[in-house]
Amino acid sequence: MLRFEVLILGNSSATPMFERHPTSQVINYNEQLFLIDCGEGTQMQLSRYGIKSNRIDHIFISHLHGDHYLGLVGLVSSMHLVGRKADLHIYGPAPLQEILELHFKYSETVIRYNIIFHVTNPDREEVIYETRMLTVRSFPLIHRISCTGFRFDEGKRAATLKADLVERYNIPKVYFAALKKGIDYVDPQGKVFKAEELTLPPPASRSYAYCSDTVRHPIYLSSIQGVDLLYHESTFLHEMVDRAKETFHTTSLEAAEIAKEVGAKKLLLGHYSARYRTLQPLLDEARTIFPETELSVEGKWFLV
Amino acid sequence: MLRFEVLILGNSSATPMFERHPTSQVINYNEQLFLIDCGEGTQMQLSRYGIKSNRIDHIFISHLHGDHYLGLVGLVSSMHLVGRKADLHIYGPAPLQEILELHFKYSETVIRYNIIFHVTNPDREEVIYETRMLTVRSFPLIHRISCTGFRFDEGKRAATLKADLVERYNIPKVYFAALKKGIDYVDPQGKVFKAEELTLPPPASRSYAYCSDTVRHPIYLSSIQGVDLLYHESTFLHEMVDRAKETFHTTSLEAAEIAKEVGAKKLLLGHYSARYRTLQPLLDEARTIFPETELSVEGKWFLV
Repeated sequence: MLRFEVLILGNSSATPMFERHPTSQVINYNEQLFLIDCGEGTQMQLSRYGIKSNRIDHIFISHLHGDHYLGLVGLVSSMHLVGRKADLHIYGPAPLQEILELHFKYSETVIRYNIIFHVTNPDREEVIYETRMLTVRSFPLIHRISCTGFRFDEGKRAATLKADLVERYNIPKVYFAALKKGIDYVDPQGKVFKAEELTLPPPASRSYAYCSDTVRHPIYLSSIQGVDLLYHESTFLHEMVDRAKETFHTTSLEAAEIAKEVGAKKLLLGHYSARYRTLQPLLDEARTIFPETELSVEGKWFLV
Repeated sequence: MLRFEVLILGNSSATPMFERHPTSQVINYNEQLFLIDCGEGTQMQLSRYGIKSNRIDHIFISHLHGDHYLGLVGLVSSMHLVGRKADLHIYGPAPLQEILELHFKYSETVIRYNIIFHVTNPDREEVIYETRMLTVRSFPLIHRISCTGFRFDEGKRAATLKADLVERYNIPKVYFAALKKGIDYVDPQGKVFKAEELTLPPPASRSYAYCSDTVRHPIYLSSIQGVDLLYHESTFLHEMVDRAKETFHTTSLEAAEIAKEVGAKKLLLGHYSARYRTLQPLLDEARTIFPETELSVEGKWFLV
């Protein structure tokens, strides 16, 4: 099974507290690394958890509140200082490019690799990255300023050969790839070996969705429908639902209801308010609605 | 003796490595806190070492390389989020204000306290903060971009009363302050009590100077003349003196020679290159010239 995991680098809302860091996470899909959000200190968190920053070629920024992007200038600069050559793709709100450029102008930094900036659309779902293996979409969230979530969908997986059968029928190796794609094998005598008989059906494609920051809103439900793992912000306990609405955030209970509504397999809570020293109450609250909930914990990998 | 100490929050050059953080330090003068430079992660470092950010009213930024200021937007925002009311004075290069304002524009943040921005002069020494107790000057350093050092000078200290004598002569308390200032006391019978006989001379005024980042250059020597504690960058060992000159940095040996030349009492090394896992060689090298050298260590307070 190809690796598909999320490493939490930070899960704190606005003010970093209790050794919790601002938002950032690494997606490892088949040893290709993607970064979602890049709060202050992300480069140090990457280093702490043994991730070489130059393994990351794609960075997705949800919105321009400091706790989601203030680590980006430092990370981009450090990639330069350690000799990066590969292109770096940054996906985010349009003004992010202006902010980066202003910093580089005054520090007189000329980044030696290419930064390719992709402006995200805060108004509708869009495919922003696509290979045969993986598709990433951005989709609108509802926050105080323009904000998008991100959804990672694994491509159609290949079928697995039934090893005993292909050996018994002496199928030449060169036809294995075709069989996995569902193409029958016809031997020199014209005998047909049906692909569906020689293979096990492919495992289901997996998906991950990231929703932070947002108030609970129906607009993004279709974009996170049926995900295997849903990271959803849960800044507050539900007793603070008024404060959540006022600040365009979500409560833990609401996150659980959303996970249930979209048929997610598992829910990961995060973006915890600095008012909560311990997080267990947030978890307990969500589990009353959606038992398959976990707290995102810094430094921990979560399987998709 | 009034407190006059420096807490190192970060001492790493450009790329944070080996759990070393980018540059920042707190000066505590008589329980008034000042921040010099504010690299990425400074707000987390403050919290780690138990410093409430809102005790800081003055922030001095040496220059606009990221490792010296990228933590400022986050710190200023967090001060706002935890309800700061007091004015915040920021001293630094002119474009820093533009950078801050661009971030706040796009995050739609309206800081609820006053930020008073003081542009530093990269071309000559200037007094930038002055009270009866303490004077702070900025002075030019020579780096790839405009950069200033900072010098903190304690004001003239008051003399100490000789408690046994003032008691024996029954000097009324109301005259104590005048005596400490050197004004004689004349009693109702016209008898003169000389201030210099009733007091011990004041302790010498103390001073601290901060030089980072800079290449070794005579221009700033007069500004750091005779300081008690000199923090001087020592990015490289002297075997890399060519690289130091090329990148406008200083070697450990040079920092020691400078400390000796200006008659500093003590030297504190810092701004270590990411190439050095262990720092002892930098210390050893400096001590061959200037034995009163110490390595700045994160989380440690150094007496001025």
